Amino acid sequence: MAVFTPQAIGFVRSPYTDSKSIPKGLGARHDAEGTLEILPEFELGLTDIEGFSHLFVIWAFDRSEGFELIGRAPIDERTHGVFATRSPRRPNPIALSVVELLSREGRHLHVRGVDMLDGTPILDIKPYMSSIPSEKLRRGWVAEAEERSKS
Amino acid sequence: MAVFTPQAIGFVRSPYTDSKSIPKGLGARHDAEGTLEILPEFELGLTDIEGFSHLFVIWAFDRSEGFELIGRAPIDERTHGVFATRSPRRPNPIALSVVELLSREGRHLHVRGVDMLDGTPILDIKPYMSSIPSEKLRRGWVAEAEERSKS
Repeated sequence: MAVFTPQAIGFVRSPYTDSKSIPKGLGARHDAEGTLEILPEFELGLTDIEGFSHLFVIWAFDRSEGFELIGRAPIDERTHGVFATRSPRRPNPIALSVVELLSREGRHLHVRGVDMLDGTPILDIKPYMSSIPSEKLRRGWVAEAEERSKS
Repeated sequence: MAVFTPQAIGFVRSPYTDSKSIPKGLGARHDAEGTLEILPEFELGLTDIEGFSHLFVIWAFDRSEGFELIGRAPIDERTHGVFATRSPRRPNPIALSVVELLSREGRHLHVRGVDMLDGTPILDIKPYMSSIPSEKLRRGWVAEAEERSKS
């Protein structure tokens, strides 16, 4: 069932041209800067976006093929279900990143926190409006893997 | 450019059968409970998901048609760009919700915080691993509208 036909609203300009160069694993920091280049026909949709400090970026894993329901994450030797990981090999190859909006110049959004490859198609941008307090989060196997890595 | 063909991995069971009944606007609380019914062929992908307290649910606005780049949000008389709002009328009709995972029974995830209509197709589920601290968030026109509503 195709629920709609995705189209790129723009593309990511990122320092990463090879997925191996993107920091992954426990404690990986995503503070690389990059640009979300929105296509001219969608620029009007950015109106008032500069008031937000953080954005959700929904993008396509366009260089990933197929999916596996169980797989190994870079931070853990054990396998986990795909919906409990951020693996690119998903039934719908949709990715989600949170970035900090540094500045806007027309249809270019300069952001910090890119973990996408250069040229990645962007599907949507949404304002980040609220957070779950850290003390309320349980992080399952990720927290367990962190504990094991300390010992 | 169709970057992939979306498919439903499951459907939302929600108390909302009419979009008018979904709480919207300033201070709207989304504490309704519902179920994410994952299709049998994707159940294996849920392995280990029960360790997470919160999940990102990516879903399709399947009852929305077309898009508008500038529109009015329910919480504000002023218009804003679509990428600065959660409007359903987006170039790609993709929605994002954060829900609290209450329990899992096989391929059924019981969750709190549904703001989807009953029968909504689910595209993806990802673990919610970290938050931006509230004190670091700027919320642009949303914060301004909240201020105006108090005065």
